[in-house]
Amino acid sequence: MNRIITISREFGSGGREIGRRLAEKMGIAYYDQEIITELINRTDFAEEYIRHMEEEAPIPLLPITTARTFGLPVNYTVEQNLKFYMQESKVIQEMAEKSDSVIVGRCADYILREMNPVRLFIYADIESKIARCRQKGEDSAELSDRELRQKILSVDKKRARYYKFFIDQTWGDKTNYDLCINTSRFAEIKSVIPGVESLIAELLRN
Amino acid sequence: MNRIITISREFGSGGREIGRRLAEKMGIAYYDQEIITELINRTDFAEEYIRHMEEEAPIPLLPITTARTFGLPVNYTVEQNLKFYMQESKVIQEMAEKSDSVIVGRCADYILREMNPVRLFIYADIESKIARCRQKGEDSAELSDRELRQKILSVDKKRARYYKFFIDQTWGDKTNYDLCINTSRFAEIKSVIPGVESLIAELLRN
Repeated sequence: MNRIITISREFGSGGREIGRRLAEKMGIAYYDQEIITELINRTDFAEEYIRHMEEEAPIPLLPITTARTFGLPVNYTVEQNLKFYMQESKVIQEMAEKSDSVIVGRCADYILREMNPVRLFIYADIESKIARCRQKGEDSAELSDRELRQKILSVDKKRARYYKFFIDQTWGDKTNYDLCINTSRFAEIKSVIPGVESLIAELLRN
Repeated sequence: MNRIITISREFGSGGREIGRRLAEKMGIAYYDQEIITELINRTDFAEEYIRHMEEEAPIPLLPITTARTFGLPVNYTVEQNLKFYMQESKVIQEMAEKSDSVIVGRCADYILREMNPVRLFIYADIESKIARCRQKGEDSAELSDRELRQKILSVDKKRARYYKFFIDQTWGDKTNYDLCINTSRFAEIKSVIPGVESLIAELLRN
């Protein structure tokens, strides 16, 4: 069976960087935005809906399919959300079956549970997440500290809601992970890689 | 400042073994039962009370001091518990100030917070904790699986209560630790050491 590492991460904690670096170091596939691209390419979900589900899940305010259907009853919306989840799960499953891989977010830890993935949760305190977002720049430059703090808390709240909605588990509950790493006090994200790689190697040995 | 590593651990998770092995590998002091011995030697708390506080904290059913005073009002009991906590804190602080050390349990992560310790939380799922207790033998041999499960859950509940009572934090809440390690899927406890040692070294670099 392929070696699978799933990474759940708080916004701004450096989880994606850890995932990318681990995949690079271990010479295995890395899936993050690639899951979205795949969903856009092979389903009839509107790209806006897919991006919206990524960011605001799981209550869509945008038209669900490319056919643009407005004013649908709630049950239909729930059904579409589940359809989205099923399609995303299928994409993730296919990716995991293709080769060894690191998969970031999107309930992959749960979706791939039968493949016995090594499950990481990456987190940090709010101050350190703010500092990291500032350092990375991107779209946080225009936000005040208060706004950035709000944004970080809000993204994580949505991730937790997505997790709860689809798989009824508490996102970030340590019992669902093999390793939980608080990046707040590491000087650089890359400095966690050797230790984490060693622990993953031991977990994959079984 | 001395390098301090604190280990909080669920009963049966192998946390003590990790602590002992880390101290050995890093060539630094290891404090666990030593804290109790020190308390017995230098305070006027009855040995039974100290052991009881360790196991059943924080509501004592046994006489508190060697003078054996029965039938005391509740306030007195609370006061004695706080006195116990202060004494224990003092012992832990002195140990940490003496040299680099690994300290197991007893709110050391909080007590030594100004020394910036690396804080580990070691946990595992209940089945793996039962298996580990069985493997270690000790006093679990006479217990049925159900009794052993009860014992494990009860010890952890008491640890959580102790933590809540004295420092009003949630024991095991990952935000209070730098690394949380689920030992359930590691073939042997000792196999976590190289990875954990590498992560600790990075954390101590700052």
